[in-house]
Parts: sequence; C-alpha cells; structure tokens
Amino acid sequence: VARRNGKPSGKLIVIGGHEDRDSESLILREVVRCADGGKVVVVTVASEEPKALWQEYRNAFAKLGVSGLAHLEVPSREELVRNPPDGILDDASCVFFTGGGQLRITSEFGGTELCDRLRDLYYKGVTVAGTSAGASVMCDTMLVDGAAEESHKIGDSLSMAPGLGFMPDVIIDQHFAERGRIGRLLGAVAHNPRLLGLGIDENTAIVVERLECFTVIGAGAVYVVDGREVTGTNVAKEETERTLTLFDLRLHVLSQGDEFDLRSRRPKSHPAEEVESTLTE
Amino acid sequence: VARRNGKPSGKLIVIGGHEDRDSESLILREVVRCADGGKVVVVTVASEEPKALWQEYRNAFAKLGVSGLAHLEVPSREELVRNPPDGILDDASCVFFTGGGQLRITSEFGGTELCDRLRDLYYKGVTVAGTSAGASVMCDTMLVDGAAEESHKIGDSLSMAPGLGFMPDVIIDQHFAERGRIGRLLGAVAHNPRLLGLGIDENTAIVVERLECFTVIGAGAVYVVDGREVTGTNVAKEETERTLTLFDLRLHVLSQGDEFDLRSRRPKSHPAEEVESTLTE
Repeated sequence: VARRNGKPSGKLIVIGGHEDRDSESLILREVVRCADGGKVVVVTVASEEPKALWQEYRNAFAKLGVSGLAHLEVPSREELVRNPPDGILDDASCVFFTGGGQLRITSEFGGTELCDRLRDLYYKGVTVAGTSAGASVMCDTMLVDGAAEESHKIGDSLSMAPGLGFMPDVIIDQHFAERGRIGRLLGAVAHNPRLLGLGIDENTAIVVERLECFTVIGAGAVYVVDGREVTGTNVAKEETERTLTLFDLRLHVLSQGDEFDLRSRRPKSHPAEEVESTLTE
Repeated sequence: VARRNGKPSGKLIVIGGHEDRDSESLILREVVRCADGGKVVVVTVASEEPKALWQEYRNAFAKLGVSGLAHLEVPSREELVRNPPDGILDDASCVFFTGGGQLRITSEFGGTELCDRLRDLYYKGVTVAGTSAGASVMCDTMLVDGAAEESHKIGDSLSMAPGLGFMPDVIIDQHFAERGRIGRLLGAVAHNPRLLGLGIDENTAIVVERLECFTVIGAGAVYVVDGREVTGTNVAKEETERTLTLFDLRLHVLSQGDEFDLRSRRPKSHPAEEVESTLTE
C-alpha cells in the first residue's frame, strides 16, 4: 500500500496501436532504450492469436538488439493462478502488453499474484509498455467500448471497466484519429472531468515518467481533453439517445517532442531538432 | 456594399449533410417554417445528378406542405451567365443548396449576377439553407478537402477556397463525427484562429440569426472550435509531414436546443422540453 503513495520509478510507454515494427520502429526503439538493453517480456493475454503476435514482436525486438526476450502467454486465468510462470518477471527490464481485447487483459491477468508482482516491479523501475488494448488497461477506469464516428449520445452504451491502474487520473483511448473516437472520449470525460482524457493516434506513444509528465513520440498526435473548466453538460440527464452537450472543454493537440505536465495539466513544446537528437542519441 | 455592413434579415440554415427526408424531417420542417410557407428554390449546382436530387427534395418539401417549389439547375456557368433564369428568385422565401462538391457551387454560381441577387435577398429576409457542400460554401474561406480519420499534418494538403461569404468569420465542416473530421478542422483553425471552427454532424443543423447567434437542431452534435486562446502551434513551421501541435483550444459540443452567441463566442443551454415545444409549435 505504501508504494501506491510513492511514485513509480519505472516508465510507462502507452502506444495508440499499429506502431511501426518493420522499418524505423521509432516507438519500439524507445521501448528498448527504456529497457536499457535488459530483458523484455511480451504479454499476449489480450490477443486471440498469441503465438503469431509473439513471433512478430520477438522478431521486431530481436532486430533492435534485444537478447533477453520472454513470452508470457496466459492460456486462462485458472492456469495462471494454478501454475504461475515463476521467474518470468525476474530480471525483466520491460513488460510489453500487446493489443487485442482490454477485457481479456483485466479479467485474465488483473488481480493475480503476477499482476501484483508487476506493479511492484514497476514501482521499482521496470518499464511497462502497452499498445492498443494494452494502452487502455493502464488506467484506473478504462474505456472498453463505445460508438465510433458519431457524437456521444447520453445514456448510450459507453462501456468502461476497472483497468490495471498503472496510470491513475486519466482515461485513455487509442487508434484515436484513425477510428474517429473523439466523440466517445468526450463522453467519457463528461462522466467525470476529474479524469484527463488522452486520445492517442496509431504509431504514436506517450512516455510517462513518475506519473508527473509525459513526452509524445511517433507519427501522429495525442489529444489531451481537459474537462475541469466545463460549464455545462447534459450527460447526467435521463434522456437516452439525446446527443451530448459539453461546454468549455480545453483541448491540446500534441505531436512528437511535445511534453505534458500531468500535475499542472499544462503542455510544453520543444523544437523538433532538439527532439530528434534526443531520440537518436 | 452598404448591405455588407448591415446585418442580414434572412436566416441561414447550415446542415451537416444526410438530413432526414423520409420520416420526421425535423430539419427540413425548420427550413419550411423559416420560409413561412413561401416559395423554396432548390439549387442543385453542387451535384452531378441534379435531376434525381431535385426529385427527392421536391417530394420531401411537397410532403411538408410547400406549394411553391422551383429548381435552379445550372448546366454550366456559361449557360447561367448567357441565359440567366430570370424571375426564379422572385417571391422566393428560401433558397436551398444541396450537397455535392463545394467547388462546383462556387465556380459555377459564385460571382454571377444571380449570386449577387441572392445575397441581396438574403439581406432583405430570404432564408438561405445548405447541406453538406451547400453548408461549406456559406463561409468566406471554405474548407474543400483534407484528410479524414487522421491528425492534421502541417504542410499537408488542406484544401481551402473562397466561399460564398454568407457567414463570415467561421469555417464550416460537415459530416463531422461520421467522417472523423476533427483533425482537418483543427488544422484549418490553426491556420488562423480568427475564424471559429464549426463541425456539424449529419442530420444536424445550425439556424443562424442576423449573424449574431445560432441554435442547434437535429440528432447529432455541433462542435465549436475556438482558437483565440491558443498558446502554441507548429502550423507555420516548414516541416512537412510533421503532425500538428496546438495548445489551449477551447471546444464546445452543442446538441439540439443549445445556442451559441457568435459575438461573445459563448454557448448557452436550454432545457430539452423548452426546445421541443418550440420545434413542434
């Protein structure tokens, strides 16, 4: 419990899905950099095709020079509880959650001893990365499902569930611009503007340090939806199928190299040259 | 020229496309209400299938009790200039621009005597309505084309052109949530935050009065993007293919019955019951 009051020493790398794995692999290179050459454990519990996905990531990480690679496959929660793969997290520098379904991650892996162990390691310095579904699960309350390419309807089925809680006080959506998800993220933030909404594009990631700030890397944008100043909404009205009203949102669009301070909720820009020199160090 | 300094007495009804024409026809009913039972002129210049579209609107408006209906077909600018359909705008209460391509409207119809005549009538009290492409052309500078379902890339081809100028100081995008267009509207506003960005969903409209305020009607939402407080952007940097950065946008999501004051740039909400009683009066 004490550790929850402290700050994690490990980084979070939260990826909006479809990160490049074949050419420049900018985001995976950052994962490897944060792992500092150490062991990377790929968790495929989200996926229905864990073996194929593991092959893909094994190849991608091997190409980037990672020698210590392990696959945490979770055939079922029962199996994970009965025969926990002891030692798989030993010496891990980074644990990487692949895409698939976020509910598979939380229902199969959440609350297990291995998950508790991972939280401990994260607080002690292990990097936790996740893409797509693996990004959504970082939150305390995660977005599971909701209509895309339409504005949010109040009373409509926006599906949320408890996430792994590695990044509290935010709610994350991925494949953001590509799948037209601004409506559902605004809906989620309207439910409780205490949470900062983060919409992450494909092949784009945030690198979170000590839960204090993050930096954007990758090709797309990260949308930060701050509802603290909202002056009007109808989200709690009991009129199903009525479209959401939401006044006075603050919206920031961040691209590669931009930083965001999670404590003050303020963005900060850096010249592109500076950024690129850091990334290619 | 004097009229441009005054306020138009006619209303604008700016529709995000795909307005319901078969069942409740809420938006077309509002068009008819604003026309006050008078003659409606349907302008199909945007479309490559003007005759079929005219049939559709003729049926829809006839069902709503409009008796005076006319079709302004524009085979070509040359034809329009050589044989202007004299008298077609006489006694018109509303001129309705259909969807299609916005450049067809401006290049074939813009700057003709008939277009000037329409502007006069609009200032004298005639309602001007437009859906989809017909919505975009209302602006001084209109959005013609731009990538959808991705975040805006600076230096990327966001295509803008001079519109009909009936609604200055805004830039309008339509089919908004449905086609994932937030990225391109943010890009357009970043170019010059003097313009207020308006993203209108399908089957949704704004009814603009005296260019002072508008009210939202219909099933979806209207997104108002106010860039006046923007504190940082990279839009003018000469780095093509870099993703847009844009800090401190103010975003309002409006739904049916909500009002927006264009002078103060402030939204205002009304209880749903009040709205529905007005619409069914």
